Amino acid sequence: MSVNQREIGRRTLFAEIRRHGRIPRISLSEHTGISRATVTTITAELLREGLIEEVTSESGDKDARRGRPKVDLKVRGDARLIAGAKISNRSVSLVLLDFEGRQLADHEVELEQTANEASDLASILAGHVGDLAAKVGRGLVDVSGFGLGIAGIVDAPRGFVHWSPSLTSRNVEFGQILTDTLSIPVFLDNDANLVAMAEKSFGLGQGHSDFIVVTIESGVGMGVVIGDEIYRGTRGCGAEFGHTKVQLEGALCRCGQRGCLEAYVADYALLREAMSASGGQDSRQVDELLEAAKHGDAVAGSIVERAGRMFAMGLANLVNIFDPELIILAGEQMQASHLYAEEVIEVMRKLIVQVDKAPPEVVVHKWGNQMWARGAAAYALDNVSELALQEMKEHVA
Amino acid sequence: MSVNQREIGRRTLFAEIRRHGRIPRISLSEHTGISRATVTTITAELLREGLIEEVTSESGDKDARRGRPKVDLKVRGDARLIAGAKISNRSVSLVLLDFEGRQLADHEVELEQTANEASDLASILAGHVGDLAAKVGRGLVDVSGFGLGIAGIVDAPRGFVHWSPSLTSRNVEFGQILTDTLSIPVFLDNDANLVAMAEKSFGLGQGHSDFIVVTIESGVGMGVVIGDEIYRGTRGCGAEFGHTKVQLEGALCRCGQRGCLEAYVADYALLREAMSASGGQDSRQVDELLEAAKHGDAVAGSIVERAGRMFAMGLANLVNIFDPELIILAGEQMQASHLYAEEVIEVMRKLIVQVDKAPPEVVVHKWGNQMWARGAAAYALDNVSELALQEMKEHVA
Repeated sequence: MSVNQREIGRRTLFAEIRRHGRIPRISLSEHTGISRATVTTITAELLREGLIEEVTSESGDKDARRGRPKVDLKVRGDARLIAGAKISNRSVSLVLLDFEGRQLADHEVELEQTANEASDLASILAGHVGDLAAKVGRGLVDVSGFGLGIAGIVDAPRGFVHWSPSLTSRNVEFGQILTDTLSIPVFLDNDANLVAMAEKSFGLGQGHSDFIVVTIESGVGMGVVIGDEIYRGTRGCGAEFGHTKVQLEGALCRCGQRGCLEAYVADYALLREAMSASGGQDSRQVDELLEAAKHGDAVAGSIVERAGRMFAMGLANLVNIFDPELIILAGEQMQASHLYAEEVIEVMRKLIVQVDKAPPEVVVHKWGNQMWARGAAAYALDNVSELALQEMKEHVA
Repeated sequence: MSVNQREIGRRTLFAEIRRHGRIPRISLSEHTGISRATVTTITAELLREGLIEEVTSESGDKDARRGRPKVDLKVRGDARLIAGAKISNRSVSLVLLDFEGRQLADHEVELEQTANEASDLASILAGHVGDLAAKVGRGLVDVSGFGLGIAGIVDAPRGFVHWSPSLTSRNVEFGQILTDTLSIPVFLDNDANLVAMAEKSFGLGQGHSDFIVVTIESGVGMGVVIGDEIYRGTRGCGAEFGHTKVQLEGALCRCGQRGCLEAYVADYALLREAMSASGGQDSRQVDELLEAAKHGDAVAGSIVERAGRMFAMGLANLVNIFDPELIILAGEQMQASHLYAEEVIEVMRKLIVQVDKAPPEVVVHKWGNQMWARGAAAYALDNVSELALQEMKEHVA
């Protein structure tokens, strides 16, 4: 067995153990096609490293032939602590997972302002991850990895933020700054990508290899899964949806361009419409506007209806371009429900190329920020597992 | 060596030989990591099957150690004949390749009408492929595979045409009809996908793993290459571009919907604009309109300019969504040059999300129909090679 084969074997077996929760050695061999002898060797290494552990089944479930308790393997929860966080407009949601992916603690904190200096935000996050670990009697230093989801244009493999509403500067090596400040491995990605990953790992995307997640918060985000992988584009700024254009030279967007989808469907877009219709007198909030639209207010109705149609047009373009199996509309704010409405999805269905096959399924998944943070933690967990297996390679070799 | 390993080895080595043109056995082993003994066994099988042949290098290039001529392996051109065709509006372009991919003959024929019954079109094509083969003294029966590119919405793996301007009916098992009529294996795909494949195999996409090809003829087509593969979507109608919407409830499209990109940039869209501006008096053709626009005609200028801006908006949306390395604008008609103009690409650059990285490269590749047909033939060549290797498996096993 070459070093390379052993490394692949280790990765394959560990992934299989994680996937099954608990599994006997013999099934590992059957599922992966790796010989029993190699399974025994590799699992012994994983046990020695403390990454997995043996658990004995209940006495009722004995190995019939030998009359002794069946021994399963499972990931050892205590092996690592993993943190994940999602930065929203003015708050941070954090969760702490063990190495099995079980949630141990969560934490929710306010931010004083939306956009922060990168180094300030890194310090703030370091403090909060420390506080989170303290909830289970541990410290920041005990955390093996931190996953962070942030809005904006993020080159995840490089940990580079082209632009984010949470940062005062553009073009920030934010991954490096976080790693330096927290002194633990940090894994950074666009928040919508992490939601897509979470949907794939433990949400509505389970069992689907090709789907799109559209997130609606203060902006519109997108995560695209193609062939079981997050699609990232070649410059690290792929899968942008909120700033695709739905109207040539249309409404002015906060990004400085015109006609972006967000300039029609974001909260600020609805508010400025109401303001312009009233000559600057309308001081209603978004939830009030939506409520008024429901109760027959003509101006509010017109504003909300156009947002829905523009959103449907954007979705229809995604369907035409990707032809996905499934679209998941994810978000925590109830106020996006006008965009999730059946009327909107029906408009989308009319705007896609008509073939004699059912259009892709569209499902709505209302997430709390805790779930976004769990997606970030799941991303870190994958990466920490990979690091643990790599470190092992060095020990053993 | 298991049957499966042998099959993979055969495929790997054959692909490597094809890629290199000619290559000695020892390099095959070095490049693929397959042992010399296995390379010897497998290449002996391929030689026996007549799929490859040995060629002796020039005397000047002797193996220094042994003083005897160096022997390379190459694909045997005579092993198979492959035909490819592209159906345009009112014509069919055909090419004949040998198994090495060398073009042996071409053929260009007119069609009496744009849309035909599937069985009629199959008969017409059978005749033309026969005529094509006759140009090298062979017949339809000597052709091992036929690749066909057709406009419309095609589920390539199933050979199913949801809709095509070349067919009078929707939802046609056209691949099966062609196979039955020609009595040889037929490989059908959307024409823009085949152009993308051709760009990848022997055009401007060589060496690129992620790029988009946009084709402009009477309609606007798209082929997307992600991770070296054509992206097809999950219902076989992915990568549709011409009917993405650039205007909510905009201009009426021939597809019956409103606001499609084609409804602004296709020939018929330009002509109806001119017609409407003149109260039905303008009888100019597209080339005349374009010429007039160049010479300062205000109406023609306005029509052409808007088409360019809508096209730029559509392209910008593709860049935002895919973040490709490269966009290839392909087409044969000189009259699409107003859409390929530098001004249009510049508008696109302004409409994409701005990051501190260069926007994707946009290149124009003016193709004749012969090149589209070569793309179709290349697709058939890949599939026929695969079939040949599979048949071999049965012989040998």
